Amino acid sequence: MTTSRIAHPGLAAKVMSAQDAAALIEPGSTVGMSGFTGSGYPKAVPLALAERIETAHAAGDRFRVKVWTGASTGPELDGALAKTDGVEFRLPYNSDPIAREKINRGEMEYFDMHLSQVAPMAWQGFLGPLDTAVVEIAGIRSDGSLIPSSSVGNNKTWLDRASKIILEVNRWQNPALEGMHDIYYGTALPPSRVPIPLVKPDDRIGEAYFRVDPSKVVGVVETDAPDRNLPFAAPDASALAIAGHLLEFFAHEVRMGRLPPSLLPLQSGVGNIANAVLTGLVDAPFENMTAYTEVIQDGMLDLLAAGKLRMASATAFSLSPEAAAGLNADMQSFRDKMILRPQEISNHPELIRRLGCIAMNGLIEADIYGAVNSTHVMGSRIQNGIGGSGDFARNAYVSIFMTPSTAKGGKISAIVPQVSHVDHINQDVQVIVTEQGLADLRGLSPKQRARVIIDNCAHPDFRPALEDYFQRAQLGAYGRQTPTLPGEALSWHQRFMDTGDMRG
Amino acid sequence: MTTSRIAHPGLAAKVMSAQDAAALIEPGSTVGMSGFTGSGYPKAVPLALAERIETAHAAGDRFRVKVWTGASTGPELDGALAKTDGVEFRLPYNSDPIAREKINRGEMEYFDMHLSQVAPMAWQGFLGPLDTAVVEIAGIRSDGSLIPSSSVGNNKTWLDRASKIILEVNRWQNPALEGMHDIYYGTALPPSRVPIPLVKPDDRIGEAYFRVDPSKVVGVVETDAPDRNLPFAAPDASALAIAGHLLEFFAHEVRMGRLPPSLLPLQSGVGNIANAVLTGLVDAPFENMTAYTEVIQDGMLDLLAAGKLRMASATAFSLSPEAAAGLNADMQSFRDKMILRPQEISNHPELIRRLGCIAMNGLIEADIYGAVNSTHVMGSRIQNGIGGSGDFARNAYVSIFMTPSTAKGGKISAIVPQVSHVDHINQDVQVIVTEQGLADLRGLSPKQRARVIIDNCAHPDFRPALEDYFQRAQLGAYGRQTPTLPGEALSWHQRFMDTGDMRG
Repeated sequence: MTTSRIAHPGLAAKVMSAQDAAALIEPGSTVGMSGFTGSGYPKAVPLALAERIETAHAAGDRFRVKVWTGASTGPELDGALAKTDGVEFRLPYNSDPIAREKINRGEMEYFDMHLSQVAPMAWQGFLGPLDTAVVEIAGIRSDGSLIPSSSVGNNKTWLDRASKIILEVNRWQNPALEGMHDIYYGTALPPSRVPIPLVKPDDRIGEAYFRVDPSKVVGVVETDAPDRNLPFAAPDASALAIAGHLLEFFAHEVRMGRLPPSLLPLQSGVGNIANAVLTGLVDAPFENMTAYTEVIQDGMLDLLAAGKLRMASATAFSLSPEAAAGLNADMQSFRDKMILRPQEISNHPELIRRLGCIAMNGLIEADIYGAVNSTHVMGSRIQNGIGGSGDFARNAYVSIFMTPSTAKGGKISAIVPQVSHVDHINQDVQVIVTEQGLADLRGLSPKQRARVIIDNCAHPDFRPALEDYFQRAQLGAYGRQTPTLPGEALSWHQRFMDTGDMRG
Repeated sequence: MTTSRIAHPGLAAKVMSAQDAAALIEPGSTVGMSGFTGSGYPKAVPLALAERIETAHAAGDRFRVKVWTGASTGPELDGALAKTDGVEFRLPYNSDPIAREKINRGEMEYFDMHLSQVAPMAWQGFLGPLDTAVVEIAGIRSDGSLIPSSSVGNNKTWLDRASKIILEVNRWQNPALEGMHDIYYGTALPPSRVPIPLVKPDDRIGEAYFRVDPSKVVGVVETDAPDRNLPFAAPDASALAIAGHLLEFFAHEVRMGRLPPSLLPLQSGVGNIANAVLTGLVDAPFENMTAYTEVIQDGMLDLLAAGKLRMASATAFSLSPEAAAGLNADMQSFRDKMILRPQEISNHPELIRRLGCIAMNGLIEADIYGAVNSTHVMGSRIQNGIGGSGDFARNAYVSIFMTPSTAKGGKISAIVPQVSHVDHINQDVQVIVTEQGLADLRGLSPKQRARVIIDNCAHPDFRPALEDYFQRAQLGAYGRQTPTLPGEALSWHQRFMDTGDMRG
């Protein structure tokens, strides 16, 4: 029954099939799963749970659960459970296409949360009890402590809070992960909170393992299954142009003495543009850099390999298959340069503010005054969720948002008169970059911001219409601090809904 | 030339008239003034500067300055300078009616900022150099250190950063202020930031005085002038009803074990409703409370006097004339229970999150999904500014927003289909209270939030129209996560602009 990955006899005795483990999850209960950006999520029990739900539904029985995770997971979790209509409530983040469809058809309640707040709010209690934790790990040590997997997310909290625990021991995960994690056990509820003693991204402030009460473990499932690693598209001209503007900005800030030559700890969202920026940094004149971020992605590994990045702190990996294979093959040379932490630490406002992170995130649309919509297409349809972007943007040393200036073949402008949904208020948006150029909004009034956003970031196809709106708003608005025309402000979105094109 | 308030001979030798001091301020320069919610602002030099500007303008010369402060000030500063068109750029907060008019006529650029970020951003450098500091103090000690006045605000930073300094020594301020302040000198720019060693509101982590380089002091002006203390209106039925709902919520949370019996450190905005809540707490069953907030207002003094509040930490006083007189007469019994700190400490995200503040702030409007507009009437006309509301709402243990459900005699609904401007995103708004009732939004999806906001908070005159919008939005929206109708979402605001009434 046991393998070398399960060194604790008591827990080895609890090895069972995924089906038997899934049978321990009650209808209507709340399940806290591991997983963050497609890594470290459980891969067998959620599939078995989906089968069980499908059988129940076929028999006319209602069976749905509430699902909490770190962030996004994989098709074996969000996809499979959404497909069977098995999720009645989901938090804090989703990027699965099937779940997204259910959510946007109004068939699944979804609360997208600041990722730093999930663990503390679970402790506060108003989210309700956590019935079961289903957590992927890389192994169980003889003392019963757990070797974390390729993401940490909220696993510490799920293990502490859940009434019962199901562990998935995934032997696909590289054994060299052991020792790479830093699980901080110093959090508390107020009035007992104390300073978090981390002053640089390199600091280790916790333990390499999860603690667990073995008596709460009701099942251990063995798996040998890969993380969901998505291939990366090569950066297109737009992504390269954005990266170019941003690298020029960094060089300028260093020349002005406003950033040190090693920059400040980098936070980077995932995706094509973010990766283009990281790739660009390989040849840029900044040395001894660090990252304090959510995920270690391909570009970060390149920077580590090139010796430009001294170390990277994150809560998860998010790698292409090629990068994952490269990392697994050469883990020994990388592992001392990477630390994986709980997301309440990787995203903690206290630490982001203290370290002075350079935050780089994507957006769906920004308005002429600098407010940013990261989540809702046409104000209503959620794409993924706010994730950690708010944790970083509010507290960063410089908060940067990046996007191509148009989408859908030029039919949608990323710069609009007014955003249809706000995730980041103008005070939290300091730099906007499109392939057209960069707008440095720091210290500007709303009308001054409009000037540089329209001039530097908008696509020429939309610039005249934005300029026209801005001029008319200054004449017709109820006040001229932030001049808007409520009857027209969202008309570009309505036009797109009506005609499929924001252009008049 | 000297008085007992100026014990340092070198600085005593620099005493001069307000006119002579104002003559040292250059056209086009940036002036960092003291002042926070009408207390501790300089009262003579700004008036003299306004006269000088008026004379220059009469002679056809351009003379405008950039003005930075702690927050709002008094008519002798913002009012006088705005009246003469003497301010080209203003940050981070204003509540002066004359300045507000100039701003909303587009004649004065204004950047309303998170109050916690003003000092660190001034250090970052992108706001430009600070030419002159004009700071009111309560006295100068023989070693040259300065006794802070009735507000701290950004004074430490202005004194550290400015090229030259003008001090106003106001003998109207109570000498018992000495020793009440806690000026923290441990801040730095990254990568040199360290944990701020404050773990309860009572902690003293700094010094009672400002340090100053005497060679930078170019003038000392003696004044004997009162702070702007605004009288308080007695709470009306609406404010009392809001306070009642909120006190019931606190009692419920204590019963559920989600708040300790002494609650958690209170943060309270200023005004009629906030004061009604504080007054209500005098008779509520919570003992040994603390406040960690921006301003000490009348209600806080009542709670201190009643022995219900153990201590209050803030950055300023904001008192009615009666309360100010009462405090001045009985300062000895209050002074050990109050600490005034720099606003970057009173409002620091690290500390608000650690302490777990209960944040209570006002709003202009909220939408059915819980986003809050605190600043812009009809999306365009700024009332005051975001102030510290974002610092507290994002990081609070419970983030509460309060408002009467209607304004302008029922013509404006505080609950609207979509807010015309966003200061607080739905994730940062956990409880909304109107005289109609309380909506506990914690852990709810957008559609679930809409249900409780419409049912519990909206005024009956507007409830059917909100319900109608919500139902139609679920049918016609581009997605049903947060269903909105862009062509209609801001129509209530347009209707008010067209007809003076949001009602159809």
